Amino acid sequence: MRAVIFDKELKYTDNYPKPVPEKGEALIKVNLTGICNTDFEITKGYMGYEGVLGHEFVGTVEYINDEDQSLLGKRVVGEISYGCDEPECEWCAVKNYRHCKGRHTIGIWRKDGCFADYITLPIKVLFEIPENVTDEQAVFTEPLAAACEIMEQLHIQPIQKVLVLGDGKLGLTTALALHAYNLDVTLAGKHKNKIEIAEKQGVKTILSANISQGAEYDVVVEATGTASGFESAMNLVKPRGTLVLKSTVATGKELNLAPIVINEITVLGSRCGQFIPALTLLKNERIDFKPLISGIYDAEDAIEAFEKNKEKETLKVLIKF
Amino acid sequence: MRAVIFDKELKYTDNYPKPVPEKGEALIKVNLTGICNTDFEITKGYMGYEGVLGHEFVGTVEYINDEDQSLLGKRVVGEISYGCDEPECEWCAVKNYRHCKGRHTIGIWRKDGCFADYITLPIKVLFEIPENVTDEQAVFTEPLAAACEIMEQLHIQPIQKVLVLGDGKLGLTTALALHAYNLDVTLAGKHKNKIEIAEKQGVKTILSANISQGAEYDVVVEATGTASGFESAMNLVKPRGTLVLKSTVATGKELNLAPIVINEITVLGSRCGQFIPALTLLKNERIDFKPLISGIYDAEDAIEAFEKNKEKETLKVLIKF
Repeated sequence: MRAVIFDKELKYTDNYPKPVPEKGEALIKVNLTGICNTDFEITKGYMGYEGVLGHEFVGTVEYINDEDQSLLGKRVVGEISYGCDEPECEWCAVKNYRHCKGRHTIGIWRKDGCFADYITLPIKVLFEIPENVTDEQAVFTEPLAAACEIMEQLHIQPIQKVLVLGDGKLGLTTALALHAYNLDVTLAGKHKNKIEIAEKQGVKTILSANISQGAEYDVVVEATGTASGFESAMNLVKPRGTLVLKSTVATGKELNLAPIVINEITVLGSRCGQFIPALTLLKNERIDFKPLISGIYDAEDAIEAFEKNKEKETLKVLIKF
Repeated sequence: MRAVIFDKELKYTDNYPKPVPEKGEALIKVNLTGICNTDFEITKGYMGYEGVLGHEFVGTVEYINDEDQSLLGKRVVGEISYGCDEPECEWCAVKNYRHCKGRHTIGIWRKDGCFADYITLPIKVLFEIPENVTDEQAVFTEPLAAACEIMEQLHIQPIQKVLVLGDGKLGLTTALALHAYNLDVTLAGKHKNKIEIAEKQGVKTILSANISQGAEYDVVVEATGTASGFESAMNLVKPRGTLVLKSTVATGKELNLAPIVINEITVLGSRCGQFIPALTLLKNERIDFKPLISGIYDAEDAIEAFEKNKEKETLKVLIKF
């Protein structure tokens, strides 16, 4: 089958073995996938992963190796991690598979990813896509779930002021998601054309350069992925406020964490999320992801798609299978 | 009067003007004071403060410039910050003076400290010391309050595992305080003689070198004040656990914050605390601070006391007035 793999270098192949579903797994024909920056990081050595890349996908279930055939023929999305399901695993017990020590994570850790004609996944992490949600919207389920996770971790009150720092796809998705939850959210970014995508959907926006000194937000979401963004976030959050750390901040910069103690800030690490709230937002058409799509490539042009993903102006790049 | 001041350099003087209490303030004869590392930081330029140093004290109220004379003649301790009390100040409204933008903080910010024969403070931040609590115990009220603040900020469940990193006075006080709250707390430190102080009062202890790789704690309190302590804390806290940052981590080290996101850790900045719970622990004799006292100096020997405070083996140094 066709696949985009990382094996010392990024490669496209049309000769990768088609996966065979184990007991409890489904075989899924992949329709559409999205490139995440994590995929790009893996091509630079992140996690030491080798195999089929990709973890954002929409597909159709072709075969199920299980008595439960309810998803057969359905259009699905899949959570990216699944756990050991051993009886003594506290993470699997609450279906929080991403912290299970025996987990597999598609395209990242011990399991082939979705940039291929076929992928296998346990049916327990598959979700049927509502009929009214197109593939182009549904392919954003995973990053949208990551944005929604903030609502799982933190109780944000309606009158509290929220600032999202960063107008890349992570910042945009987060701002759109929090706005969909009827919160008082402002998106700050450096690029007028990018923050306008959120503005057109009702989000308050501001150019980063125009944020007033001494501004104070109850919650600041750091989504720039830079050390300077983290430092800005520390200065913009109120005493006793919350700084949501949504991106793995670039290493190799000296950081002074004293403001966290002096202002008694809570820094909340936030990573992936559950799919149900994301699918509900999509079903209710609360967010339009079309303006975030910077290009749709055929599988054969995957290398070119990765090149496109590197460009500064690019938001989401999709690959069709 | 006698006073220990910072004015470009640390000085002892016997000729400092006696303060005059403003309306709502008390004049307090200082009996006993404690050196905090913050005092030492100020002598290196922290906060740009100049004036009488010190914020940990026990004193006796000699005069009150207010109709309310209830504390006259009483032995008291005082919270270190007092706010503007303007009607629109959200921090003063909840008596959380340390975040008020118009605050004064004794010996640190816009107000003379307690290393002197006399200090003035608003009566609203003074607390009478229970009769059974000696000066030598009561002088620990402020650092103990800072330790108790963790209980104000965070709900720690009885079956959760807590690790305190660092066996300086901050770590010892924190471990003893959390133990007094009947929590499952372990103190980790590099110095057998120091961790034994906590061990003798019932706290579980471990030498830092003996902490097993992969150990997982629900809550880790970083009280080493070092960047490497912070990195250890990130590795010892469970996914979705809480890292309480109790000390302003040394600057100038490159920190990789990615584990916070990957393990969805909450980093909770924690600073000063309210006096009531600390005074209640002291009244109920839950902690004995005597083993933490490394020396008691007369006011005239204050410079020597500061030198003693610098020594690695030293815990708390007291100065008598």
